[in-house]
This record gives sequence, C-alpha cells and structure tokens, in this order.
Amino acid sequence: MRPVKWDGKELWVLDQRLLPTREKWVKISSPEDAFKAIRDMVIRGAPLIGVVAAFGLAFSDSFEKDRVKEKAEMLKKARPTAINLAWAVDRVYRRAVSSKNPKVDALREAEKIMEEEERRARTIGEYGEPLIENGDVVLTHCNAGSLATIEYGTALAPLRVAKEKGKIVKVIATETRPVMQGARLTTYELLKDGFDVTLISDTVVGYLMYLRKVNKVIVGADRVFRDGHVVNKIGTYQIAVLAKRHGVPFYVAFPSSTFDPHTNLKNVEIEERSPLEVIYIRGRRIAPKNVKVFNPAFDITPPELVTAFITDKGLIYPPFEKNLTKLL
Amino acid sequence: MRPVKWDGKELWVLDQRLLPTREKWVKISSPEDAFKAIRDMVIRGAPLIGVVAAFGLAFSDSFEKDRVKEKAEMLKKARPTAINLAWAVDRVYRRAVSSKNPKVDALREAEKIMEEEERRARTIGEYGEPLIENGDVVLTHCNAGSLATIEYGTALAPLRVAKEKGKIVKVIATETRPVMQGARLTTYELLKDGFDVTLISDTVVGYLMYLRKVNKVIVGADRVFRDGHVVNKIGTYQIAVLAKRHGVPFYVAFPSSTFDPHTNLKNVEIEERSPLEVIYIRGRRIAPKNVKVFNPAFDITPPELVTAFITDKGLIYPPFEKNLTKLL
Repeated sequence: MRPVKWDGKELWVLDQRLLPTREKWVKISSPEDAFKAIRDMVIRGAPLIGVVAAFGLAFSDSFEKDRVKEKAEMLKKARPTAINLAWAVDRVYRRAVSSKNPKVDALREAEKIMEEEERRARTIGEYGEPLIENGDVVLTHCNAGSLATIEYGTALAPLRVAKEKGKIVKVIATETRPVMQGARLTTYELLKDGFDVTLISDTVVGYLMYLRKVNKVIVGADRVFRDGHVVNKIGTYQIAVLAKRHGVPFYVAFPSSTFDPHTNLKNVEIEERSPLEVIYIRGRRIAPKNVKVFNPAFDITPPELVTAFITDKGLIYPPFEKNLTKLL
Repeated sequence: MRPVKWDGKELWVLDQRLLPTREKWVKISSPEDAFKAIRDMVIRGAPLIGVVAAFGLAFSDSFEKDRVKEKAEMLKKARPTAINLAWAVDRVYRRAVSSKNPKVDALREAEKIMEEEERRARTIGEYGEPLIENGDVVLTHCNAGSLATIEYGTALAPLRVAKEKGKIVKVIATETRPVMQGARLTTYELLKDGFDVTLISDTVVGYLMYLRKVNKVIVGADRVFRDGHVVNKIGTYQIAVLAKRHGVPFYVAFPSSTFDPHTNLKNVEIEERSPLEVIYIRGRRIAPKNVKVFNPAFDITPPELVTAFITDKGLIYPPFEKNLTKLL
C-alpha cells in the first residue's frame, strides 16, 4: 500500500491519524498544505515527510528566490527531528533556484525523491532479508513500513522480502504510545499483507524477551549520526537496552536520506509535542486535565546497542563511524 | 482518599475504571458482587483486592461449611496472580468455620484485615521515608497508592510520609498501558494530595533515565517470593532493567500480606487478560479488530534488579532469601 497518490497533477495523502478505523485522503496543493500535514501528523515517517515536503515546495505559487526560500524555511520547521525533511526541501530548493524552468524542475525533483525512496526501501529489504531466518519472531516499534515511506518501508522491508521468498515470519508490533503508530498503522498494513502480527502494549517488551519469545528487533530511524547514534521514535532506546540484556539482535533500517554526517548529538533538537497527545486518546480523556506531561517524540540510542544497520547501500557492522562514512 | 467506604453495615467501593473523569460508587453486598468487582477491575491493587474479597466472603448468605467453602473458592478465582486475594479469603474462611457466630466473626475478620492493611501502608511509608531525599524525582509504575490499598498506599506511602515531613518530592507516573492505572489513578490521587506529578507514556522511561531525570524508582508488588522474585504490573521488569543500567535505585514496596513463602516462580499463574483491553480505549478502537494480542497483566522482576524491599516490617536488603524469610 502507498500512503501517497500522485497522478502527475494532484497529490493526495492518506490521513494516518484516522487509521485503522477510517481511510480518508487529503489533497496537498501548496507548501502550506504540506506544512500542516507534516506538523499535525496527517502523514509521518521520516522518508514520507521528506517526500511530502518536497512536493509541498514544488507547489509554491512563485519561484522568485526570496519567496521560495521563505517557503522552504517554513517547511523545514514543520517538524524538527527527522533529517529527511530538511534534506528533501533543500534538494528541491537548490534545483528550483538553479533552473530556468523552476516549476517543472522542482516538481521533477520531488518525483525523483519519491521514486528514489521507493527504490531505497526495496533495496533495504533485499539487503536485510538474509538476516531473517525462517520462523523468526521479529519485534518492531512504531511504524517504519509502507505508511512511513513508499511501498516496502524501512524496518518492515526485510520482512516483506523474506515473506516474498517464502520465509515464515511472525511480527510483534508495539503499540507505541502516545500516537500509537504500532497499534494503528503497523498492524493495519501487515494484516493487509497477510502477515502473522501480534500487538503488545509498550509495557510488554521486557517480559516478552524474558520469555524468549523474540528473535530479532528491527526499527527505523529519523536521523542517524556518523558515529552511529540513532534518533528514532520514543521508546526505541529502552527496547535496545532490553534487546542487549537478552542477547536479541537489534537492527536499525534506514535509507541514506536519513543519514546526517554534518551535525551531532549535541545539536539535534528532540521534538516535544503537546500534552494533549498523552491526556486524550481519540477525544476521550484518560488523565487529569491539569497534569504535567513530558512528551518527547523521539529518543537516542547509542551505537553500542545496535547490532547492525540495514541501509540501501548494504549492511553496516561496527566499527560504525568508519563503516557508515565509507558506505554513505 | 479511601477507595472503600464501610459504615459497619454497607460496603461501597469507588469504580476505578471510570477515574479520573467520573467518581461512581458501587455497593458490594455479596460474594458474587465482590467477585465481579475484582474480576472486572472495578477495584484493583493487591491489598485492596484482599480487603474487598474478605468482605465479600463475610457477606455470604450462609456459613454452612460446604457453602462458604464454595464461595471462598469462587472468590479466589476472580484474579489469579495477587497473593493477597487467597490470603485474605483464607483468613475469613478459617475464622468463619471455626466460629460459633460465623456471620459476626467473619465480618470482624474482614474489618481487621482492612485495618491491618491501612496500618501496614502507613508503616511502609515510615520505613521507606528515609530513602527519599529532599528534591528527589521518583518514578513509579501503575498505581500502588491509596487506590490500591487503604490511605497511604504501598509504593506511594514513603512519598506521602516524606512530604508530611517537609521534603520536596517530584513524582513521575508512567501511563501503564493497557489499563492506564498510572495516567488515570496515580496522577489523580497525587494531584489531590498536592504532589508535583508528571505523566509520561510507557515509552519514555528509558529516555528519561538517559537524561538523568530520575533519582529513584518505587513500585508495588502483587506477589513476592522468598527468593526475592517480584510479580508486579506488566512493565515493571523493563523499568527495573533500565534502572539497573542507569544506576537508579529500584525499590519494591509491599505489605507482608503480599509475601508468598510457599510457592515459587514455576507455580505462579501470570494472568492474561482480554485483547479488548488493548484494542479499545474508552470505547474507541485503536487497532484492527482482528489483530492478535498478547496481554499479560503482570511480569516478573528478578531479585538482582531490586535494590531493597520496603515492607511494614522494615527495609530488606540482599541477601534477599535470608533477609525476607527472617523478617516476614
């Protein structure tokens, strides 16, 4: 399944906030539409955010330099943590301002980014597939699947390719509070694809490993630094700690567009989102109105907890600093 | 706040499923009422389950031996994991069958159990208070407070006594999916008592420790074995693993009624509850209807992750097997 529809004229995105109970498509026809869709999490997932932002900028009403720069800056502020957003916007911006036909070329660049992400996802799947053994039970966190990118996903791509090759793979999806991408999105897309998938609360990860019911963990990433530190959905770090304790391999799958060789841990902004995401679920209040909430959207996993990275350039093993920069 | 009202004639319990949005009291006037209230989690928390079950049995319509035994067996099956349930029911049963005035004496025994739990909670608070330093940020999981027992709570008792003595204590409450006792109950009772409390999703525990924002962890217990293994709310084990990694002291507070010297890890039944607890939240569906769910209500924390036990008989440090049996 694809979370975007592009027919050469109109871009529609699936409103992921309403899944799995409702499938509603939203039209994106301006940078402002794209900004709102990203900020409000109509769409999410690092690669998909990049794709939608790229189209958003290409839909600018003007390609006069100051004007398009302003739109690009606005788009980059929609969410601060995933590197793909700035990366994709910068690509479209550079293409537009160096072109004699910016409207056409910006759109072509956005299309190219989308096609590349689709290819990268498939390639991640092919490189990751040999890691998956027949009969494996693989735990994944949040949604790093079709709905986070185009078609194959990142963390879920190796599982899809393994299944195509006839391997039997069971998947454990963590709910992923507060936004519940695991419960709402990962289960939804994997059931559609005929996977055997079991949903657990985020509290169950440790006990499941204690019971030796998990063989592997694969997660995605929102930003990977050159030293191998991983910024990903809140909850990733604690799963990595548990995997280490239980000797369960912990893999991080990401496309090269998520690699950030230029900044580091000290300069990254970990987005904090509204307390309302925690206090209300689907409009129902589950906590006192006035309670304080700490609601970071991401956390940081140190490289010593990562067994290997699965990328569109190949598998990357330690020493990470050397091997990440060599390959990406 | 007290989760039960007993005026010598009628027992009313606060329906904890509706908190914090609604305060509704439910009358318990038979063993069957108590059974349903426990099974359906109208009330929960190991000590409180024991108290309500004790009254439930004392409300039996007959104290003919076979009849009261049948009621006792029914009550003990309401939930399988917390030892307090069987312990309290057995006490009332033994009192009733050895009495010439069983109706009066069974009720007196239930009252005594309630008074004892109240006293134990206060005593846990007094023994635990010196562990709390002024300015501490203490993380707790689930609800081991007033709503889980009578008045002071177990895990929250040391915090209450510390606050009475003028220490400033900030509390981090984990949401505790799926039943959300942390979000719904712990925040609610601590805000009522004027605590500074911050709610987090269960996914945030690791990152919060990574940020060095937690000084101590205190949780309750549903059953503690003589070797120091702890059965407590699902999610406890992974918090203990994270605390160990980050050098954060991990305390388990429990009344002596929760100690189980007679069985062991291999014989304990870890309750699995309905998938609906995970798929629906307050009547709203958050996952595909047909998804498989693994929903254990408890997990097991090994003694090497516990810094000390806080009990109504005193603090218990390693070696646990020796010191637990000596004191309890």
